[in-house]
Amino acid sequence: MRIYGGEHPNQQILSRIATNDGHGENSSYFDGWKAYENDPFHLTGNPKGVIQMGLAENQLSLDLIQDWLKKNPQASICTGEGVSEFEAIANFQDYHGLPAFRKAIAQFMEKVRGGRARFDPDRIVMSGGATGAQETIAFCLADPGEAFLIPTPYYPGFDRDFRWRTGVQLLPIHCHSSNKFKITQAALETAYRKARNSHVRVKGILVTNPSNPLGTTMDRETLRTLVSFVNEKRMHLVCDEIFSGTVFDKPRYVSVSEVIEDDPYCDRDLIHIAYSLSKDLGVPGFRVGVIYSYNDAVVSCARKMSSFGLVSTQTQHLLASMLGDEEFTTSFLATSRTRLCRRRRVFTEGLKRVGIHCLDGNAGLFCWMDLRPLLKEATVEAELRLWRVIINDVKLNISPGSSFHCSEPGWFRVCFANMDDTAMQIALSRIKKFVYRENDAAVQAKNKRRWDDALRLSLPRRFEDPTIMTPHLMSPHSPLVQAAT
Amino acid sequence: MRIYGGEHPNQQILSRIATNDGHGENSSYFDGWKAYENDPFHLTGNPKGVIQMGLAENQLSLDLIQDWLKKNPQASICTGEGVSEFEAIANFQDYHGLPAFRKAIAQFMEKVRGGRARFDPDRIVMSGGATGAQETIAFCLADPGEAFLIPTPYYPGFDRDFRWRTGVQLLPIHCHSSNKFKITQAALETAYRKARNSHVRVKGILVTNPSNPLGTTMDRETLRTLVSFVNEKRMHLVCDEIFSGTVFDKPRYVSVSEVIEDDPYCDRDLIHIAYSLSKDLGVPGFRVGVIYSYNDAVVSCARKMSSFGLVSTQTQHLLASMLGDEEFTTSFLATSRTRLCRRRRVFTEGLKRVGIHCLDGNAGLFCWMDLRPLLKEATVEAELRLWRVIINDVKLNISPGSSFHCSEPGWFRVCFANMDDTAMQIALSRIKKFVYRENDAAVQAKNKRRWDDALRLSLPRRFEDPTIMTPHLMSPHSPLVQAAT
Repeated sequence: MRIYGGEHPNQQILSRIATNDGHGENSSYFDGWKAYENDPFHLTGNPKGVIQMGLAENQLSLDLIQDWLKKNPQASICTGEGVSEFEAIANFQDYHGLPAFRKAIAQFMEKVRGGRARFDPDRIVMSGGATGAQETIAFCLADPGEAFLIPTPYYPGFDRDFRWRTGVQLLPIHCHSSNKFKITQAALETAYRKARNSHVRVKGILVTNPSNPLGTTMDRETLRTLVSFVNEKRMHLVCDEIFSGTVFDKPRYVSVSEVIEDDPYCDRDLIHIAYSLSKDLGVPGFRVGVIYSYNDAVVSCARKMSSFGLVSTQTQHLLASMLGDEEFTTSFLATSRTRLCRRRRVFTEGLKRVGIHCLDGNAGLFCWMDLRPLLKEATVEAELRLWRVIINDVKLNISPGSSFHCSEPGWFRVCFANMDDTAMQIALSRIKKFVYRENDAAVQAKNKRRWDDALRLSLPRRFEDPTIMTPHLMSPHSPLVQAAT
Repeated sequence: MRIYGGEHPNQQILSRIATNDGHGENSSYFDGWKAYENDPFHLTGNPKGVIQMGLAENQLSLDLIQDWLKKNPQASICTGEGVSEFEAIANFQDYHGLPAFRKAIAQFMEKVRGGRARFDPDRIVMSGGATGAQETIAFCLADPGEAFLIPTPYYPGFDRDFRWRTGVQLLPIHCHSSNKFKITQAALETAYRKARNSHVRVKGILVTNPSNPLGTTMDRETLRTLVSFVNEKRMHLVCDEIFSGTVFDKPRYVSVSEVIEDDPYCDRDLIHIAYSLSKDLGVPGFRVGVIYSYNDAVVSCARKMSSFGLVSTQTQHLLASMLGDEEFTTSFLATSRTRLCRRRRVFTEGLKRVGIHCLDGNAGLFCWMDLRPLLKEATVEAELRLWRVIINDVKLNISPGSSFHCSEPGWFRVCFANMDDTAMQIALSRIKKFVYRENDAAVQAKNKRRWDDALRLSLPRRFEDPTIMTPHLMSPHSPLVQAAT
C-alpha cells in the first residue's frame, strides 16, 4: 500500500532524453555486442563461442607498454619509486590538466603525423575519451536542431556521442563503393542543399580520418575540398583522427592539421580535431580523449566543459612520462604499425582465398568486407538476415553496414586487432566453412531452381540468380576451404 | 588576405551554450580562485601570497593512502607485482565498470553511513566526478526549462553542473540564519508555489547533505519532510552526499538512504544520490563520481551516459583493492574524521577569540563564517566590498555568501582542510590582524563621527552605527589579537 499518489510511468517523471532511444544502443551494431557477451569465445573455456569482431580495439602492442612500465616504475604514483608524488597528483584537479601531460600529448600527436604539423600544448583540451570529445565539440559548435553533415558509412557511436544529449542532427553525405566511398564535391553539395531545402541550418561537417569503418585515409585533395567547402559556407570541419597512429601502409597519412598549415587562406577558427589514445595506444580503459581546436573560443569553452570528463590525474601522470619518452613512442608506433599491417594482410588474404574481398585499406583496426555477393537481394533486410546467420551460426560478431548508415547493403566491418593470432585463424576458418556451406547450398538451389524454372518459367529471377550468391572466386574448390572442411 | 568570407564573430558560428555565461565561472566564487592563482601563498617561496581557503579539498589524510600504497604494490598495474594485469585493465571499457570496483564502492558507501543503509553494486553508475554525476542526473530527470528547487545557500558549481548544458533551471528555497538555514515545509511550499505561478514545471529538489557550504548535516525530520514532499508532488529528490565521509562530530549522519529504508511508503523511483571520492578520500584528481539511483530506468540511462565520463580503469583497479580493504577503510575514516574535527576546532576557536563566529557545524571541509558585523550595510555590494578587501589586503581567498546564492549578506565559506597547520595558523593570524585594524578604524571613525554629528545632526545613521562594525566580542583587547600585532 502506498499513501502517496498512484501509478506513474517513468515517461512522465523522467526527461525526454531518458525515455527516447537517442542513445542508439538498440541498433544492430550494439545487438552484436550483446550476442557476444552472452556467449563469448574462449580458446579452451568456450571454443564454440562467438568471436568478437565488432570491437575496434588494438591489443597487438600492449606488451610494449607493459615492458616500458616494468622499466619505468618512477612513472607511477603507486610504486615505491613514484609514491612521493602521490599527494600532489591525487589532489590536482585543474581542468587544464598536468602541464607535462598536455605537452606529451601534443608531442605524440606531432609524432603520429610524422612531424608534418605542430600542436600547441595550450590547445590540448581533455575529454572522457573520444566519446566525450565529440559531445563537447557538438555542444560548443551547434544548437539543438542544427546539423552536421557526415559522409556514410560512419561510426554508429556518433549517433550517441554527437547527437543524443546535444540535440544536434547528423545528416548523411552519401558515398558509394564506385569511387571507394570517397567524398565528392557533388555529394557534399547535394547533402547541403537537401538540408537547406528542409530549413535545417548546417553548422559543419564531421569526418573520420582514417575512416571508421572503411580503414582508409583521406587524400589531400579531398581534405582540401572539405576545407574550401567549410570556408565558403562558413561552417565547421571536425576531423576525428583517433586512428591516426594506426596508419600502417601507403598512402601516407595526411591530417587536416597538415593541410591547413599549407593553406594561408583557411579560417582556422573553423577547424577542430578529436583525438584519443584508445586506439593508437590500445588503452580505451584509460579514457583519454582530446579536443584540439584552432578556435580560441572553442578551446576556452571546451576546457570548461572538460570538467565533466577529465582524465584521472593518476593516468595523466603516467602518460606524461610514457609519451614524453621519445625513444619509446618512436619504437612503439613503428612496431604497432608493422604488427597491424601484418595482421590485416594475413586476414584479408585468408578472406580472398574464399573469394571475399575487402575495400583496400591502409589504416584502422578493421576492414570493410564486401559480402554483397552473398546477399539474396540488395536490401537492408537481406543484409540483416545474413548478419544474423553470421552471428548465430558462424558465431562471429561482425557489424552490418546498415548500422554504419551505409547506403549499399552487403558491406560489413570486421575488426581484426582485438584478438591473438589463434583466434583470428579460427575466425577465418569459420568464415571459410560458412562460404563453403553457402556455395554448396547455392549449387543445390541452382539445381532445384532449374527444375522449378522448367515448371514455372514466368517467375521473376532478378534476385534469384545463383551467381549473386556464388561469385566466381567463391569456389568450393579453393584449397583452403577444402582444408578447413 | 583571405579568399573566403569576411569578418564573422564567433557568436554566429558557435552554439548559444558556448557564447553565454551559463558556466558560471564569472562569479566571485571563481574570481577568488583567480586571485589565488596569480599570487599563491608558499611558506618560504611566497609567504605574503594569497592563502587558498576557497577550495574544499581534503589534504589531511593523504599520508594514510600513501602508506597503504607502499604496502600494497600489487594493487597497481604499474608495479612489478601488478603489471601482469595491465593488458586486461587498460583494455577494459565496459561502462558497467570493473565488478570489483562497483562492489568496493558500494561497500565503502555503506561503511561511511555506519552500515545503516545497503547499497547494491548493480546500481552504482560511474561519472566524471560529482560534476559529471550532477549533470547526468539532470539530463535523466528533466527537460530544458524544467526546474529543480534548491535550498540556499548552495554550492555555486551546481549552476554549471546541473544547469549549463542541460537547460534545467535551479530555483531557490530561501533559508535563513534564524533557524540555522534549515529547510522548512513553509519555505518548500513557497518556492514550489512561486515556480508554479510562473508556469515552470518543478521536477525535483536538489540538496547537499552534509551541506556545502554550511558544514552541517540534515536532521532526520527534515529529510522526512523532503521525502514526503517529493512523494506528494511526484517529483525527484536528489541528495548530493559527497561529504558524507567527513562527518566528524555529533549529531550523527543520516543519509536519505537510511530514511527511505525506514519508509515503506516512499516511492523509491524518486530518490537519487550523488557521491564521489574527491572529498571523503581527498582524491579529486582521480575523478571518481557515482550516481546511485533507486530508479531502474535512471540507472540504465545514466549508465549509457556514463560513456561520457567513465573512471579510468587504472584508477578503478587501484580503488577496488584499496576500498575493498575493510581494515584500511575503517581506520582511514576514523583518523580522517578525528583530524578534520581537530582542525575545525582549532580554526573556529581562533576565530572566536577575535569575535568571529561560525555556524555550528559537524561535517565538511569548511565553515560558514559570519562576518555580518563587519558589513557597513546589509547588502550584497557591501559583502563584495568586504570580500575584495579580504582577498586583496588580507590575502585570503574565501568565498562570499552571495556566490552561494545566500539571501543574507555577510556570510563567507572558509575552507580549512586544504592546507597544513602552519598555513592555517598564518591564515588565522592574518584574520586577527585584519579584525584588529578594522576595530581600530571603527574607533577612529566613531570619534570622527561624534565630531561630525555635532556639526551635521541630520545625517541618516542607520548604516553608520559603529556598533555594526564593532561587535562587543571583536575587541582589540583580545589577548590573541594583541599577541598577533
